Amino acid sequence: MAARVLLPHMSRASGVRVAGVGLTPFGAHAGRTGRDLFAEAALAALDDAGVAAGDVEGLDYGNFMGALAERQGHQAPLVAEAAGLRCPATRYEEACASAGVAVRAAVQTIRAGEADVLVAGGMERMTNLPTPEVTEALAVAADELFEVRAGVTFPGAYALMARAYFEAYGGSREDLAHVAVKNHANALDNEYAQYQREITVEQALDSPTVASPLSLYDACPITDGASAVVLVSEAYADDNDLDAPVAVTGTGQGADRMALQDRAQLARTPAADRAAEAAYADAGVGPADVGVAEVHDCFTVAEVFALESLGLYEPGEAVGAARRGETTRDGAVPVNLSGGLKAKGHPVGATGGSQIAELTRLLRGDHPNSDAASDATVGVTHNAGGTVASAVVHVLEVVE
Amino acid sequence: MAARVLLPHMSRASGVRVAGVGLTPFGAHAGRTGRDLFAEAALAALDDAGVAAGDVEGLDYGNFMGALAERQGHQAPLVAEAAGLRCPATRYEEACASAGVAVRAAVQTIRAGEADVLVAGGMERMTNLPTPEVTEALAVAADELFEVRAGVTFPGAYALMARAYFEAYGGSREDLAHVAVKNHANALDNEYAQYQREITVEQALDSPTVASPLSLYDACPITDGASAVVLVSEAYADDNDLDAPVAVTGTGQGADRMALQDRAQLARTPAADRAAEAAYADAGVGPADVGVAEVHDCFTVAEVFALESLGLYEPGEAVGAARRGETTRDGAVPVNLSGGLKAKGHPVGATGGSQIAELTRLLRGDHPNSDAASDATVGVTHNAGGTVASAVVHVLEVVE
Repeated sequence: MAARVLLPHMSRASGVRVAGVGLTPFGAHAGRTGRDLFAEAALAALDDAGVAAGDVEGLDYGNFMGALAERQGHQAPLVAEAAGLRCPATRYEEACASAGVAVRAAVQTIRAGEADVLVAGGMERMTNLPTPEVTEALAVAADELFEVRAGVTFPGAYALMARAYFEAYGGSREDLAHVAVKNHANALDNEYAQYQREITVEQALDSPTVASPLSLYDACPITDGASAVVLVSEAYADDNDLDAPVAVTGTGQGADRMALQDRAQLARTPAADRAAEAAYADAGVGPADVGVAEVHDCFTVAEVFALESLGLYEPGEAVGAARRGETTRDGAVPVNLSGGLKAKGHPVGATGGSQIAELTRLLRGDHPNSDAASDATVGVTHNAGGTVASAVVHVLEVVE
Repeated sequence: MAARVLLPHMSRASGVRVAGVGLTPFGAHAGRTGRDLFAEAALAALDDAGVAAGDVEGLDYGNFMGALAERQGHQAPLVAEAAGLRCPATRYEEACASAGVAVRAAVQTIRAGEADVLVAGGMERMTNLPTPEVTEALAVAADELFEVRAGVTFPGAYALMARAYFEAYGGSREDLAHVAVKNHANALDNEYAQYQREITVEQALDSPTVASPLSLYDACPITDGASAVVLVSEAYADDNDLDAPVAVTGTGQGADRMALQDRAQLARTPAADRAAEAAYADAGVGPADVGVAEVHDCFTVAEVFALESLGLYEPGEAVGAARRGETTRDGAVPVNLSGGLKAKGHPVGATGGSQIAELTRLLRGDHPNSDAASDATVGVTHNAGGTVASAVVHVLEVVE
């Protein structure tokens, strides 16, 4: 890993370290159960951390659609047991931001001095449902009365948001295609990615329309997978000589009105603005410090919204970022070096934890794309629920 | 309210106050939505507290089966919006302990200094599903692979636990019938209770068998309802001259193996033992200090398990408590003066918050049954998930 210039502040917020990360491959895991997938990720994270399961004091776990996909609720104690954890375990559900919220809870619990060692992450089984049923299950994250009954599903909702953005600020389908191309290229060498293959702008533009202006290659896939991170107090890391150079220094959460019709406008995502503002303030950093970002690109246009909410671009300016090469692996701030939800995959309840795991690997230098982040000491994750009715942002920093 | 002798300790844990409580009537709310029910409870709690919605910094919200009952996930921002709250909102799902976990999170967040004013609670819509579908939806809280597919539903599971208890320690159906009779009697004057009517031991014993040894009157009903409490820091309460004499001084959570078959024995509930132990240690009190308790009597036998986990009885001795009059309104430690889940009702995701609300009313002196708790300065709540694979215990104390 290249030498980095660390920021001088290092507030009390540097007290939570990412000691280890674990992921299952993202993709279709026919014949496996959710508990089995989460155990794989959790055991990998503990192994990566060099922390014994017996030291874990709690599990904060994200899952979205288990009651529909596996007829399994009350998953937290179940997956804890599967992972060999004997500790209190809590499930968080915040649609696609479920694991982001779980990580945030773990960070706050360690900061409060209530625990020194927690596992956070999430899991989703999706491919076991037929595609129309997955779409219906995902729609449970929208407003059932005022959106779903009117026929709105998430591709349609994000298409409305993309149209609003184009009308407000300009931008084109080609701009969005470049986001897809970038994220597929980034996923090429990521062993956990669902799609380790490149695509072209022409392929993206020629793919079937899903909800105009969005086409098939603007959308993330349907994915099974799990993520886990071991979060520890700085004191525990020191006392146990852990190699844990990455700290979670900022956490923020925001909410917005649920249904699109109730929002003042659709070309911005204020829940994520608030989450980012809170996370930056918490960490004592700003957008100018950010060197790498993992953001919630459930659709290509969602990456555009994310970059503006994170303050990396002014409103209306992020849409051309990938086309201009600013967010590609050689750009000023590489975005979604993991492949993002678009190409790495989006097992809903696992995604927020996967972002933390991937960003940690990028900052530690053991990610296949770490060379593209070698100058970065500060990274951010952006995890959104629904049409960004909820959002969680975390700031991670290299502190050693 | 009678003069009370307050305990001398008052640790840092006295720093979280219950500023206000709100409940909907428990029962069937045909034609109303979940968001509407929760808003009613939250607005009542804010009104009771004298706290403006604009001061609320976060919502911690429990819900169990919304994806199945209303096809509505991602409920936290939705119900926050319905209640006029403009703040981050998180949903917790821990089966029947969902709201208990939500309250616990809020307590920890305030203690950590991350917020001064939070709303916690929960909501469940259940009566809109036909009864067989409700039973199937509830079964999602059990182990789908190793319990549900084998035909185990919750009445069956608790019947197995009751049999194991009877075999280990003795006890009879009549002992359990006395629990039902007591809790129905307690609900008589509770305006929020689903069943404001008394029953007799004979009626309970003669009611149809559900899963032997449990009969219809051993089981709690299917219920719609919502609960909310406003939790504030002591500093906020002081600065705003709130009348908030009750503090949450202890919180504890425990977990156990999920499936009954994986447990060493069925006559005890170790998850709740651990939760109680942690909560007592947190508060610096013990079972001998407890003057009143609200416990998770989803079935009559569950109240027996709860009293032993709470340390109010030695193993095997709680089964006769109601029959002997020790837990009735005139007993040494009145239990479920609200009517409990049995007679007040059990809207799954709301129950943990309802217990906090009812215990607060009992301790403040404005509950119809407060006269039976007038000597109590310490009360406990016991909220369990599934067959007590998870449990949350809180200690509340009168501190002013």
